[in-house]
Amino acid sequence: MQTLSTDSRVTRHFPPNARYLIGVSGGRDSVALLHWLISLGYGRLIVCHLNHRLRGRSGDADARFVSRLVERYNEQALRPPRTRTGKRSAYPTMAGGIEFESSSANIRALGKQKKMSIETAAREARYAFFAETARRRNCRTIFVGHHADDLVETFLINLFRGAGSAGLAAMQQISTRRVDGVDLTIVRPFLCVWRKEIDDYVSEHRLKFREDATNKNLTPLRNRIRHRIIPYLEKILGRNIRQNIWRTAMIAADEEKWIESELHDSTHADFSVVKLRALPIALQRRALLKWLRAQNVSDIGFAAIERVRSLADRDTRIAKVNLPENRHARRRAGKIFIE
Amino acid sequence: MQTLSTDSRVTRHFPPNARYLIGVSGGRDSVALLHWLISLGYGRLIVCHLNHRLRGRSGDADARFVSRLVERYNEQALRPPRTRTGKRSAYPTMAGGIEFESSSANIRALGKQKKMSIETAAREARYAFFAETARRRNCRTIFVGHHADDLVETFLINLFRGAGSAGLAAMQQISTRRVDGVDLTIVRPFLCVWRKEIDDYVSEHRLKFREDATNKNLTPLRNRIRHRIIPYLEKILGRNIRQNIWRTAMIAADEEKWIESELHDSTHADFSVVKLRALPIALQRRALLKWLRAQNVSDIGFAAIERVRSLADRDTRIAKVNLPENRHARRRAGKIFIE
Repeated sequence: MQTLSTDSRVTRHFPPNARYLIGVSGGRDSVALLHWLISLGYGRLIVCHLNHRLRGRSGDADARFVSRLVERYNEQALRPPRTRTGKRSAYPTMAGGIEFESSSANIRALGKQKKMSIETAAREARYAFFAETARRRNCRTIFVGHHADDLVETFLINLFRGAGSAGLAAMQQISTRRVDGVDLTIVRPFLCVWRKEIDDYVSEHRLKFREDATNKNLTPLRNRIRHRIIPYLEKILGRNIRQNIWRTAMIAADEEKWIESELHDSTHADFSVVKLRALPIALQRRALLKWLRAQNVSDIGFAAIERVRSLADRDTRIAKVNLPENRHARRRAGKIFIE
Repeated sequence: MQTLSTDSRVTRHFPPNARYLIGVSGGRDSVALLHWLISLGYGRLIVCHLNHRLRGRSGDADARFVSRLVERYNEQALRPPRTRTGKRSAYPTMAGGIEFESSSANIRALGKQKKMSIETAAREARYAFFAETARRRNCRTIFVGHHADDLVETFLINLFRGAGSAGLAAMQQISTRRVDGVDLTIVRPFLCVWRKEIDDYVSEHRLKFREDATNKNLTPLRNRIRHRIIPYLEKILGRNIRQNIWRTAMIAADEEKWIESELHDSTHADFSVVKLRALPIALQRRALLKWLRAQNVSDIGFAAIERVRSLADRDTRIAKVNLPENRHARRRAGKIFIE
């Protein structure tokens, strides 16, 4: 049987007998993740599917597909199928308690309303749905299907956008994210697994998946990085390039985790200029990013952070700088505020 | 006159009336840097040139070129030439005290002896020469000609080699480096300046330089990144790619500076397992890197650091791991040693 080179920390930290959410779009990666978890004995999963309503009937078909997949796992719980090689697989013998939660969101309208890209709006809507389900079902841990190639692509996207090291560490194997007051723990068991291995796993187990759902989040930039830039880098520089970028991304993620833990709470409505100045430049940027996010300033780029940071300059005469969505940061009486 | 978008911090922190070393290979970048500093009134520079003896007579010609350049600056100190546009340039009116220090090293032999690449051996020999000169002339600050394109290329080289974030922050505008017991301050005033701007500056001032010296350190990897990969990225993704990578590299450099300051002294001959375990993973890696360097373990890659780190695992039965050049790290009585 095709095995996957996942990190054993995941199964150790999140044992199979507990309840977990899992995000399933119906695409190859999440279908493989669901199958893999069930085959390891994760029998109390709550499958979460959000219909993005971006492609009309196709989105409905994705939702039906995932719903039927869950039904089939529950039906087949007592009769494990045979693999292509004829051997009995370590298939869903423990399943039977897989549940299905779904919702839909008008991503296009949300994107317009909040002035976000479709990709950002879709991600926000997904996490809002996950958080709502987590609260309602009292289950705060969610498995998602990101794999090693996703990590490398996301790393390059953030690099080419100039996101700084916080952006370079965008995906971690185990991370937490506060969404609408819910602390979600996000687990990515496949972050060490390459797309090729998932392909092999899917074909070995003859898993069906929705091709459209697989490419749903393929923005033009990700598309170019996946289909043109990474193959070109491999051609010019050799096969180990993806592996090396992956390693850098994983190290960046560990460092990010630690830096994040060094930052103090930033939920105050104002930020003291003296406190900001006392931090090293690297932490000034992180602290402001965290604080601006807590003030619900969205879409904060490097330039915006540097503008806010300039309010703390000793020599500055500037007392007000612009932020996205017609908001402003202002310095008054030794404090920085958002208006 | 062509002006350069340098960071004013450099001239503020390092005022023109003091003495400084400057590394001059004779290539375009260092020739431009020397001219730019002299035109700003830096009149007490000590020009340092190392003959790498890699290309026979050509290396001797580089050395003669730089020596004559220094002579000419001293001679011309009182008669500033005209620029192409006919205006009198802010040329070396304060010069006259430019000195010349040179030496030569057998880089090929050094590389073989220490099992280093030619590029690494050349860099080590250069910094050993800078440190020796710094000590002898009692002048610890050296200007070098690295520019924004160098930074972007070095960032990508380290990324593609999987160097981790410490490697991504390889170049800083102002940094210190301990070489043979001398604390050198390395200043890179052109780190915000693009090669194109230096080209314009060089042609505006009709500066002569040695083409060979410009490409002396162009390894095959750097060559491919400069001439194939960056142009390809710009073609596929647009012109702002270099700018964005540059920004990420500068942020990484600021963070590196801070993380470095958080690390404790690592000059002890042993490293306590308990202390190592107490650090976050990100700092474990940095602390081990710093410690291994202090133990003169050269050429330390990520894999070697992870092997040494595994000695501190609670569950490990391994008490000895291999390091480059037939050296070993061993755990005994709660401490890690190098043999």
